[in-house]
Amino acid sequence: MFEARLVEGSLLKKVMESIKDLLNEASWDCSGNGMCLQAMDSSHVALVSLMLKSDGFENYRCDRNLSLGINLASMSKILKCASNDDIITIRADDDADAVTFIFESPKQDRVSDYEMKLMNLDTEHLGIPDTEYACIIKMPSGEFSRICRDLSVLGDSVIICCTKDGVRFSAKGDLGNGNIKLAQSANVDKEDEAVVVDMPAPLSNQVSLSMSEDVPLMVEYKINDKEGDSKGYVRYYLAPKIEDSES
Amino acid sequence: MFEARLVEGSLLKKVMESIKDLLNEASWDCSGNGMCLQAMDSSHVALVSLMLKSDGFENYRCDRNLSLGINLASMSKILKCASNDDIITIRADDDADAVTFIFESPKQDRVSDYEMKLMNLDTEHLGIPDTEYACIIKMPSGEFSRICRDLSVLGDSVIICCTKDGVRFSAKGDLGNGNIKLAQSANVDKEDEAVVVDMPAPLSNQVSLSMSEDVPLMVEYKINDKEGDSKGYVRYYLAPKIEDSES
Amino acid sequence: MFEARLVEGSLLKKVMESIKDLLNEASWDCSGNGMCLQAMDSSHVALVSLMLKSDGFENYRCDRNLSLGINLASMSKILKCASNDDIITIRADDDADAVTFIFESPKQDRVSDYEMKLMNLDTEHLGIPDTEYACIIKMPSGEFSRICRDLSVLGDSVIICCTKDGVRFSAKGDLGNGNIKLAQSANVDKEDEAVVVDMPAPLSNQVSLSMSEDVPLMVEYKINDKEGDSKGYVRYYLAPKIEDSES
Repeated sequence: MFEARLVEGSLLKKVMESIKDLLNEASWDCSGNGMCLQAMDSSHVALVSLMLKSDGFENYRCDRNLSLGINLASMSKILKCASNDDIITIRADDDADAVTFIFESPKQDRVSDYEMKLMNLDTEHLGIPDTEYACIIKMPSGEFSRICRDLSVLGDSVIICCTKDGVRFSAKGDLGNGNIKLAQSANVDKEDEAVVVDMPAPLSNQVSLSMSEDVPLMVEYKINDKEGDSKGYVRYYLAPKIEDSES
Repeated sequence: MFEARLVEGSLLKKVMESIKDLLNEASWDCSGNGMCLQAMDSSHVALVSLMLKSDGFENYRCDRNLSLGINLASMSKILKCASNDDIITIRADDDADAVTFIFESPKQDRVSDYEMKLMNLDTEHLGIPDTEYACIIKMPSGEFSRICRDLSVLGDSVIICCTKDGVRFSAKGDLGNGNIKLAQSANVDKEDEAVVVDMPAPLSNQVSLSMSEDVPLMVEYKINDKEGDSKGYVRYYLAPKIEDSES
Repeated sequence: MFEARLVEGSLLKKVMESIKDLLNEASWDCSGNGMCLQAMDSSHVALVSLMLKSDGFENYRCDRNLSLGINLASMSKILKCASNDDIITIRADDDADAVTFIFESPKQDRVSDYEMKLMNLDTEHLGIPDTEYACIIKMPSGEFSRICRDLSVLGDSVIICCTKDGVRFSAKGDLGNGNIKLAQSANVDKEDEAVVVDMPAPLSNQVSLSMSEDVPLMVEYKINDKEGDSKGYVRYYLAPKIEDSES
């Protein structure tokens, strides 16, 4: 029997939103430590690694390690039926071929349950080596999201340059080329102010970019609840692009 | 001469929105009692029955019974040209082949008139038998709208189960199956609170579902003005679906 | 060397929005007086004439007259990368084949630069004769925008009739025909109130329509900053439509 109850159910909705466009299907591995998911996107450019810690749930019971093979588009559709203030419970029997999602309104006057078939997925768990990164950039997630969107107008890849003075994001393409420079101090002190602008439902206010030469960039969003307590993380590992004639 | 003047013109806009996706064209039957419209949708699953009472209008004059054959998509487009705070007047001569809509801004500084050609429609007025329903569910219209939207993710039909404890809406399909249970008390006491959530422009805060075994479900929205006074209703009669192997 | 710095950068974004759907490419002619642009739309119905006065910029330097041939869709995409509160600088060398846009956040913690290739455009500057118009209508730009949108439901041309009592806009088509009448006083006194309704980002609250029989209608929006100071204008000259059997 597996059962996990999350009072701030909107967190699961946001986590789902953050991966559903990248992954079609994935296994949620449930153990005493929590629920985790690891999968390559279909174009094999990004590795998603997601962790929801068991002590981040109000109730968490996992009698036996389970691997739930899930069509993420379907799970996302079902989670959209939960209100933002609903309590979400995930439940599965040990040998189940289905998982049940239960949504309770805060006043318990509306209780919904959705049963979804599980999939048999061949998954190989990739070992992610511990890496000492040369440079770690922490910045408001809204700012990062905006920079990516702005530069995507120019091209489909971005060069991130980290110096002592700050960070520079650059892109080029048919339209022309562009650079966005962030002064270092700004990103450290004023982050909360800047965040308000753009992301409607960020996983967290802060993103960290960890990078070294010739090693995948790690983009990490902490999953925090309203009180700011850590519930886990979503990490994206992005392989560096090999350009033929990059200056 | 027919002339009907509605100070809260937005009501007519909302009524139009509530039927225009279901019906292509229909006759508005105008008499001393008011304006009424009755028509089957093109798939012959739903019967729409709409009533705007003559005493719900500020001025109402109907010298002779009239039947105005109207393309509802066209009428809807024209009504979108009225502001929400406009006063709307509908006017037609007794033998007219056109109807005129007049929109006056509250301060009378902008007056618009739109003339629309009428259609010749063969309409048979269906007698709707008075029915004693076994069960009548009253609930916030926003809640009902949301339940239908949520369950439409799973399938295109819904089973409504009414017991002493409350109501259960169920659907199933390829994705899985789902149930939404509403406790009885909740729907009676807290309706206004719950309504705020989802419907941008409901005809009214309340919907009532009247049902009996093997009889069309009647879904009724009262048309109320800002003061809550009754101006009429929109009723949808939905034939029960005959499932081949429904459990 | 050409360099023009606009502290209220959102003005340039709005100006761009106001022409980009009408024109594909155009020359910005830069001189000591300011930046101006004049071009026919691709269907040769509208002439756009735009002026940004040099003294409307905080810094303005133009060593030699320049003509910057620009793909307006590209420029619009780049300007979308500027925040609404960014300071925008346009810079070009005298013999440059590229123009640079620099966006600075108000606190200088984010500086972006975008370089865009210039185009070689054959442009003939049309002389616009000074015209004494028989009738000039000033009205809230939101009201005008709304009238055009409403009447476009009926047909693709509109007749503007100007009398001592006010203005009448008329259109007709398959759906029927419509007239919108504005009383004269209303448009003079209450303009600010009416404007709020519809235009998300108007160039200015006021539009003026200048017209005479058989002469292009001139639709003028002043470009004003937040303090209401004039920075220039955007004018659209629209050739009157010759109807075959217009009543």
